[in-house]
Amino acid sequence: MKWLTCSRQWLTSLLVVVSLPAPAQPTQPYSYPPSEVVMIHSQLLNEERKVYVHRPKVDSTDTTKRFPVLYVLDGDNHFELLAQYVDYLSRPDVMAMPKLIVIGIPNTKRTRDLTPTNSLLNYEGKPDSSSYQSSGGNETFLQFMATELMPMIEKTYPTTPYKILAGHSFGGIASLNCLLTHPDLFDAYVAVSPSLWWDKEYVLKRTAETLKTGSSLPKRLFFSDGNEGGPNSFFHKHVVKLDSTLAKKKLTRLEYLYKHYPTETHMTEPIVAYFDALRFLFRDWAKQR
Amino acid sequence: MKWLTCSRQWLTSLLVVVSLPAPAQPTQPYSYPPSEVVMIHSQLLNEERKVYVHRPKVDSTDTTKRFPVLYVLDGDNHFELLAQYVDYLSRPDVMAMPKLIVIGIPNTKRTRDLTPTNSLLNYEGKPDSSSYQSSGGNETFLQFMATELMPMIEKTYPTTPYKILAGHSFGGIASLNCLLTHPDLFDAYVAVSPSLWWDKEYVLKRTAETLKTGSSLPKRLFFSDGNEGGPNSFFHKHVVKLDSTLAKKKLTRLEYLYKHYPTETHMTEPIVAYFDALRFLFRDWAKQR
Repeated sequence: MKWLTCSRQWLTSLLVVVSLPAPAQPTQPYSYPPSEVVMIHSQLLNEERKVYVHRPKVDSTDTTKRFPVLYVLDGDNHFELLAQYVDYLSRPDVMAMPKLIVIGIPNTKRTRDLTPTNSLLNYEGKPDSSSYQSSGGNETFLQFMATELMPMIEKTYPTTPYKILAGHSFGGIASLNCLLTHPDLFDAYVAVSPSLWWDKEYVLKRTAETLKTGSSLPKRLFFSDGNEGGPNSFFHKHVVKLDSTLAKKKLTRLEYLYKHYPTETHMTEPIVAYFDALRFLFRDWAKQR
Repeated sequence: MKWLTCSRQWLTSLLVVVSLPAPAQPTQPYSYPPSEVVMIHSQLLNEERKVYVHRPKVDSTDTTKRFPVLYVLDGDNHFELLAQYVDYLSRPDVMAMPKLIVIGIPNTKRTRDLTPTNSLLNYEGKPDSSSYQSSGGNETFLQFMATELMPMIEKTYPTTPYKILAGHSFGGIASLNCLLTHPDLFDAYVAVSPSLWWDKEYVLKRTAETLKTGSSLPKRLFFSDGNEGGPNSFFHKHVVKLDSTLAKKKLTRLEYLYKHYPTETHMTEPIVAYFDALRFLFRDWAKQR
């Protein structure tokens, strides 16, 4: 046994030598466009929050320029993607949209911050007390954005007043809830697969109640869904209903686009939906320059 | 006047105080998923080349895992985007494709490396000697990939044999040229808006000549075009012709998808086309797991 052990050790060391990688290639870290993590204490939320900030590259002729701001909910999921899209689409050889500052807001208590009402019902309408007990804090979260986060961003970075709010799933209903309750906070709203099932279709009902037929709503709105249970699913029907409700309201100056992605899942859809959202929001930008 | 000057100075300093930014927020750099730049000396190209390498995050149970490799041409344009897509789509809560190692190959002499023939004709068929004089080096570049780059990658990183080649524009014809001349180098090919106009439709002609009707080509191929001059443009007609040529060949085991993006430009299209390409190449992956 001892021999065997020794032999194995010898064999192992031989294998180590044999399988050594090729002489090391000269390597250095890849430089991504820099972004930063900023800490902010929220009195409203009674916690420290971090936000991710991605600033456009500016050349020496650009140093006095100011930029619109895109606020992205679920920052840990979609901040990098949107920063990437914005950087690429605003390149001089692409010129499909302006440079933006992108702010990613990662979650601390996602359900608390992104749901508009306190409800213990899950998407099937059944009680799900475990994860939804803290729900209903979206109004406080929007106050945090309006009175703590946005003033800090606007003091610290070279912003213009134009602002976009983008969210997916619970972030989608948070975005729509903001449009309904504080429309003036942002100029454009993106709601990718909004969880319209929340609390017995609260956001759908609120949309029908809040928006006055024929009134003016000078905003842009992109919303979408993927394949979340197929064409007969409640998820799809809800989003179709949002589309038809908006159509019936005949709001003046609201420009909106609904896109359905039947081949994408709830989680793959944001990649293509956020791209289409940026293309929609800035569809006339190149002409206006 | 002196009073006015003094007063202005005073006013200016007051404004400076008033507009001072809020107390500096605690800030730290944002951590992107690390990638590295690897230098390799190419004897074939007689130059130092850098390549970008993005490796999947592995947890402690994953350390012996090996990964397919996606090689991306025009690395400075599309490496970050594809690394982002791959990371996101392979997340445990998304699970739309496997983790991949992504290799971005930035250009040194783009026209030399990515065009299959020496030609001085531009896309209108007119001489453009200034930028195309060095054209026609794609065969040498593919040899560099096959005999220098890929062996280095495979020695240095935990790879499986499955490999994808992806390119846009000139990179698109390079990808197709590789499929026609060295099909065994990769398992799947992506050609986003390939410049099929190159040298009097050389790649289209070569496709018609090289592929034997009814023969076996066990590969996957995604190709696409955007709005590059509209539906009657030669650019679109060429890509449609590639599609019909492949259809006529009735190749067995070739799975291919052609997508047309009439609302995207030559430069915005890669964002959505590369996403659709990954979704196509791995469309049955989730089922096969």
